[in-house]
Amino acid sequence: MVKYPNGIKRAIVSNKQSTINRGMNLEDDINLSNKYYLDYNIANIHKKPTPIQIVKVDYPKRSSAKIIEAYFKVASTTDYNGIYKGRYLDFEAKETNLKTTFPFSSIHQHQIAHLKNVIHHGAIAFFIIRFNYYNETYLVDASKVIELYDDINCKSIKYSWLQVNGFLIPYSLTPPVNYLKYLDINNKGDFYE
Amino acid sequence: MVKYPNGIKRAIVSNKQSTINRGMNLEDDINLSNKYYLDYNIANIHKKPTPIQIVKVDYPKRSSAKIIEAYFKVASTTDYNGIYKGRYLDFEAKETNLKTTFPFSSIHQHQIAHLKNVIHHGAIAFFIIRFNYYNETYLVDASKVIELYDDINCKSIKYSWLQVNGFLIPYSLTPPVNYLKYLDINNKGDFYE
Repeated sequence: MVKYPNGIKRAIVSNKQSTINRGMNLEDDINLSNKYYLDYNIANIHKKPTPIQIVKVDYPKRSSAKIIEAYFKVASTTDYNGIYKGRYLDFEAKETNLKTTFPFSSIHQHQIAHLKNVIHHGAIAFFIIRFNYYNETYLVDASKVIELYDDINCKSIKYSWLQVNGFLIPYSLTPPVNYLKYLDINNKGDFYE
Repeated sequence: MVKYPNGIKRAIVSNKQSTINRGMNLEDDINLSNKYYLDYNIANIHKKPTPIQIVKVDYPKRSSAKIIEAYFKVASTTDYNGIYKGRYLDFEAKETNLKTTFPFSSIHQHQIAHLKNVIHHGAIAFFIIRFNYYNETYLVDASKVIELYDDINCKSIKYSWLQVNGFLIPYSLTPPVNYLKYLDINNKGDFYE
């Protein structure tokens, strides 16, 4: 499923930035990357399904139950988790069309609570944040983001802050967002290749 | 949400077996146990939402999007994962109303493939299997179940096999299925209490 959410805008940006206009959203890129990690036995990381409250199901045939009334529920955790080098790994991925800030209103309070909790239990926890305007994707430690989030005066992540505190993940084809590589560098661990 | 799927039958069984007829299904019991582990800072384990293919969404108001056509998808992983003592943990929970066997037809091929993969990456992986007839819940290493599953002549897990190779988890109130305790014993690790 290739999506072209901001095709024209991106084309312009990509000329400016000399990056590839791939026309894929962050979720698609991460799902492809996770499939790559799975296929090449590097890690086992999955996006959790969107939580749905099912109200009414129709059974025209037993084999093809049709949901005819359901509602989106608020997720109680982050979207992605899995295992990498024996470690539990947990992250949230977000993109913004803004130029200078990523607003904290895009992150739910319970996602922060969840990340704090898994860090307490020893998880590798981080955010992947994409600024669509620059076609740039960053990996940043969850603990650093949490520190900002807990500062009552701080309502957003500044792009300039992310440039200093995050790791820019260059776009590649295989996989599109090679975040595990930059996680290793960030943690001064061994790169998997 | 208390469910009474087999209320009458269970009442009879519980008299025979001197166990508590709690009228809860395995999923509810495990969800309550996971909430207990979360609340008491023991572990962070969640059931993944059921994967749904959304086809049509109605927006009567933007704030209350209503899904009016959707279908159940086959899950590509197990239902439960999380972190415990810094380790990635992954399991599937199943119950049966049969007396002597748990049929492998209840376990999807890709769930076995997923468990093999996470074991390769260093996960703690297991099954929780409940025989409703006896009101008995067992924890059993995923690797032991996989060995049976891969035996072409073996179509099910025998109750008698589970009694020898699994760990009976006695019903308790807090939490209802204290599987981490028996995981620790199974792995000769430290019990968390």
